[in-house]
Amino acid sequence: MTDIAMIEAAARRAEGHIRRTPLLSSPFLDEIAGRRVFVKAECLQHTGSFKARGGWAAVSALPADRRAAGVIAYSSGNHAQGVARAAKLHGVPAVIVMPADAPRMKIDNTRALGAEVVLYDRAGEDREAIGAALAAERGLTLIKPYDEPQVIAGQGTCGLEIAEQAAAEGIGTADVLVCCGGGGLTSGIALALDARAPGLRARPCEPEGFDDTARSLAAGRIERNAAAAGSICDAIVTPAPGGITFPIMQRLCGPGLVVDDAEVLRAMALAFARLKIVVEPGGAVALAAALFRPEAIAGDTVICVATGGNVDAATYIRALAGD
Amino acid sequence: MTDIAMIEAAARRAEGHIRRTPLLSSPFLDEIAGRRVFVKAECLQHTGSFKARGGWAAVSALPADRRAAGVIAYSSGNHAQGVARAAKLHGVPAVIVMPADAPRMKIDNTRALGAEVVLYDRAGEDREAIGAALAAERGLTLIKPYDEPQVIAGQGTCGLEIAEQAAAEGIGTADVLVCCGGGGLTSGIALALDARAPGLRARPCEPEGFDDTARSLAAGRIERNAAAAGSICDAIVTPAPGGITFPIMQRLCGPGLVVDDAEVLRAMALAFARLKIVVEPGGAVALAAALFRPEAIAGDTVICVATGGNVDAATYIRALAGD
Repeated sequence: MTDIAMIEAAARRAEGHIRRTPLLSSPFLDEIAGRRVFVKAECLQHTGSFKARGGWAAVSALPADRRAAGVIAYSSGNHAQGVARAAKLHGVPAVIVMPADAPRMKIDNTRALGAEVVLYDRAGEDREAIGAALAAERGLTLIKPYDEPQVIAGQGTCGLEIAEQAAAEGIGTADVLVCCGGGGLTSGIALALDARAPGLRARPCEPEGFDDTARSLAAGRIERNAAAAGSICDAIVTPAPGGITFPIMQRLCGPGLVVDDAEVLRAMALAFARLKIVVEPGGAVALAAALFRPEAIAGDTVICVATGGNVDAATYIRALAGD
Repeated sequence: MTDIAMIEAAARRAEGHIRRTPLLSSPFLDEIAGRRVFVKAECLQHTGSFKARGGWAAVSALPADRRAAGVIAYSSGNHAQGVARAAKLHGVPAVIVMPADAPRMKIDNTRALGAEVVLYDRAGEDREAIGAALAAERGLTLIKPYDEPQVIAGQGTCGLEIAEQAAAEGIGTADVLVCCGGGGLTSGIALALDARAPGLRARPCEPEGFDDTARSLAAGRIERNAAAAGSICDAIVTPAPGGITFPIMQRLCGPGLVVDDAEVLRAMALAFARLKIVVEPGGAVALAAALFRPEAIAGDTVICVATGGNVDAATYIRALAGD
């Protein structure tokens, strides 16, 4: 299981390969939120999201002979690029199984990072069966997107940086809001903060209608989302928190926060105007919660993670035009 | 006159007040440029541009009693915000003289940073006369936007960071492309690189039709622009290089590079898609040169400074829609 030693080992393996992203702020955001707001800009990470951390951690942790055979992942988005980049820089093959109707740009980007993209029909084919057959045939190792100890350790390196950066800013206690899908990043950050900055508390943030983690934490058991799609926050829509990530979040996280799509778009526009960073909808959920759910947050300071910036121009224009 | 000791003193005074901005990159940009491209993301600086550096350096260098009386600047844009922020954090008054037809948001932002904004009629009034009268009456110190040794020293702190970050990336020789208006940033960076990374050479980048610095460097004497406005790169349109900045650039800089507005908009869209940073037109000129003037650049690596991100949504949407 992931622990602080595993996270710190992942951080050492990541040196020179993963960016230390900045902690940004703006007095204009502080005024909206009614407290100091710090934004961990993971959209500036390699591949445009924190997923580069988990991909690197998992691929770099494999025994050399197993790694040489290659890795495989299922993903239509950020995890695909994180795994593809890690495999490419390790000089090993990567196969990414993606739905045939994934955005063209995501398919192209994944291929440009050197991965072999295997497309499947979302309606008629089972991606797990396709992946399992390929993995068996070629000896590939499956890199799961969140319910995997080394991936959690990699995402946890973001939490180590937050602990250090918060200390440098003189922040002793604060809620740390994290955009949450399957819980890999939230649980990794929670583990890192628990060990290195116990005054900071991780809290998952989700879009309305896809608040499986918030409901699961409230209920004390894993609850599932009613729908599988329908949010603009596609990057963080998962059916339910993971079997490995949920117990960690249950032990260490504060209650979940939920925002609606309009608030997410406003947060994206404010990140544009005030921080000069490009944030995708799923990556703006935590900032939206920091700005628009002030009553649900304690303390004079809040930290939120802007988890990714892989958004198409049309969606981004929609966010800016509404501002 | 500004020298490396003055730049390093400015860097010490800036500690904790000015961000060390990241040096970003993307394999997709490398492919377009045909060499490695590194982008110094000064758009992530406080106030959204490198001008926070010069403003801080100038205000912090004043004797305490003179500073207490306050400062004044003429600016419709980034310099105004840099000076206003520095004055506010020093607890002293700032007066910013702005044209009455400046964009509402820039006036509001400058006021929100605590400055008193004095509006003048661009057609019928002389801003220098207004400023001189206010300065004399209240004992304010004028902070010029570029032709001022402490401002050049402050902008030079960006060059110190580039020298360190290039060394960390193993870059020994490279052109460093800088978006150039009056030459404060270009000359400051040139001085810092000359002292701390002599294999790196600063080169000014300008928009077509407003290439006063490139022409001045080629001619060996200061040449002026024919027009005073008409570029989308408003932040870096100045009549001519400064009397202090030009001799520094003449001594230390390589030839200037010139790009057109369409290339600037494409560079903005690529910074959005590949780096996840928001860059204003005047801040994208150097990246445009790195990407679209490969034949004018030597070596296998180029560094460019994305100098600012203060762009309105309408202009930004125009850049994204064209991509």
